[in-house]
Amino acid sequence: MSQPRPTDPLGQMYADWTVEFEAHPQMSVQLMRWVFEDWHRATAEPEGVTYASTTRGGIPGILATPVDGEQDRLMVLMHGGGFALGSSASHRKLGGHLAAACGTPVFVVDFRLAPEAPYPAQVEDGLAVYDDALQRGIAPGDVTFVGDSAGGNLAISMVLTLREQGKPLPGAVITMSPWLNMENTGKTIETNNDTDFLITREGLQGNIDRYLSGGASPTDPLVNPLYATYDGFPRLYVCAADTESLFEDSERLVELAERAGVDVTFSVGHGQQHVYPLQAGRLERADQEISLIADWYRAGR
Amino acid sequence: MSQPRPTDPLGQMYADWTVEFEAHPQMSVQLMRWVFEDWHRATAEPEGVTYASTTRGGIPGILATPVDGEQDRLMVLMHGGGFALGSSASHRKLGGHLAAACGTPVFVVDFRLAPEAPYPAQVEDGLAVYDDALQRGIAPGDVTFVGDSAGGNLAISMVLTLREQGKPLPGAVITMSPWLNMENTGKTIETNNDTDFLITREGLQGNIDRYLSGGASPTDPLVNPLYATYDGFPRLYVCAADTESLFEDSERLVELAERAGVDVTFSVGHGQQHVYPLQAGRLERADQEISLIADWYRAGR
Repeated sequence: MSQPRPTDPLGQMYADWTVEFEAHPQMSVQLMRWVFEDWHRATAEPEGVTYASTTRGGIPGILATPVDGEQDRLMVLMHGGGFALGSSASHRKLGGHLAAACGTPVFVVDFRLAPEAPYPAQVEDGLAVYDDALQRGIAPGDVTFVGDSAGGNLAISMVLTLREQGKPLPGAVITMSPWLNMENTGKTIETNNDTDFLITREGLQGNIDRYLSGGASPTDPLVNPLYATYDGFPRLYVCAADTESLFEDSERLVELAERAGVDVTFSVGHGQQHVYPLQAGRLERADQEISLIADWYRAGR
Repeated sequence: MSQPRPTDPLGQMYADWTVEFEAHPQMSVQLMRWVFEDWHRATAEPEGVTYASTTRGGIPGILATPVDGEQDRLMVLMHGGGFALGSSASHRKLGGHLAAACGTPVFVVDFRLAPEAPYPAQVEDGLAVYDDALQRGIAPGDVTFVGDSAGGNLAISMVLTLREQGKPLPGAVITMSPWLNMENTGKTIETNNDTDFLITREGLQGNIDRYLSGGASPTDPLVNPLYATYDGFPRLYVCAADTESLFEDSERLVELAERAGVDVTFSVGHGQQHVYPLQAGRLERADQEISLIADWYRAGR
């Protein structure tokens, strides 16, 4: 390992985590969850946002509401953490930044985690929140699915599941550094190894094993959206770092969606870390990405 | 150990932590810090509160502001965690509940942690926040020091330090389950061992060693307020659980303060866990304590 010490908040955090993962190779999933909760630390508190610990469709989470926002739209945020880690707490502030920038409430979903609940529990929980929004009178097109890392996979799979069920689709999907390749064959895992301070193929495999422990195939389009078709998919925003291990997942997603005629926007964070928008309020490039997302969001209304 | 499985959120969390501490006896201080960040999970998001990641007097922290509150008063919240663990993040929601209930901004202080920074760094940082408040035009009597566990020790020590320096004192002090006995001789550590799911004498000693690694004596009144005198001390609110290991610290504090003629209120949480107000929004007795504190706070204005 010839990695230089990172200079951005997220890179430093990932490097700190890696020290502990290597020092405690037998770390329990519970302890790994507490480490990943540290993700929140990358993000500064967004101002002008209030929160409520509540449920939507029976699923717990945190509702982030901008003080001066509208109430007739909703973003459903599926957090990252390999389907097994992360929570509404690790991603509350990211949700708050999106809420403030877009002027829209964001529900950060505490979906069930693998391995206790493997696929499709996470997709079901996300869709229960969506169903609840529609029952509250929000139009499907006024709902946006958002997800980072594994949550980006879930946000896409939620749309594919709705399409399969012939149900109305949300108006837009935003993914940040989506993790899609459940075969674990991405080439950038190797080529970007020296510039990605978090992701390892072994770490990914552990999360794949937990997520698919219910028996789903790693080539099922609903767990591996690189096997999906994108006809009729909502407008899609993808951001990822060209220096991160999972960059190929975003490149392939964008290619598949474009080929199907989807309205896709691809924003590349040069030299950034995995899910770099988590540094909102602490890094200019993260604030810029939140701002680009908000512009894109408002342009589609 | 014949402890029954606890039924309150905090007891369950403490039991979960203990499993990991026992499974990983060589746990690094860094990893312990991430475990203690989990403290936040006991608390539901308070509604009607906004936050800012900011500094006061050069010290970082989170300012929790009630949407409809006043701006000319301040609570300075010193978090628990044995002087070495905990943060503005673990205690943000507790600060938010106090802010909402009292109608007053609360600054949750990210003071420097031991052992990297032993005593008196924590007291200095808390007092830098206080000085900043006075420079902003807030009257000393309109500032309240709040602290839980080790933070209760700090809140008291901050007042004793100001008194020693002949400086104006804050108007009130609120401590929740304060940890004061740096000689580690408390009797309730043994007599309440079966009903306290967190505290062990060994764990306390590790934190004492870290805090006093700068050379302070465990009987110095500024690190062990059980050796202090309380003449001229501000009105004081103390809450603690009669079933917790550190209950004796509160009993002795109340006795010392009463003997010095201080206006003391002692609220006992029967059958509760260490720092039970952290369960605000999730446990009736915690909400009740926040409410009692708010009534007491408003009555003193």
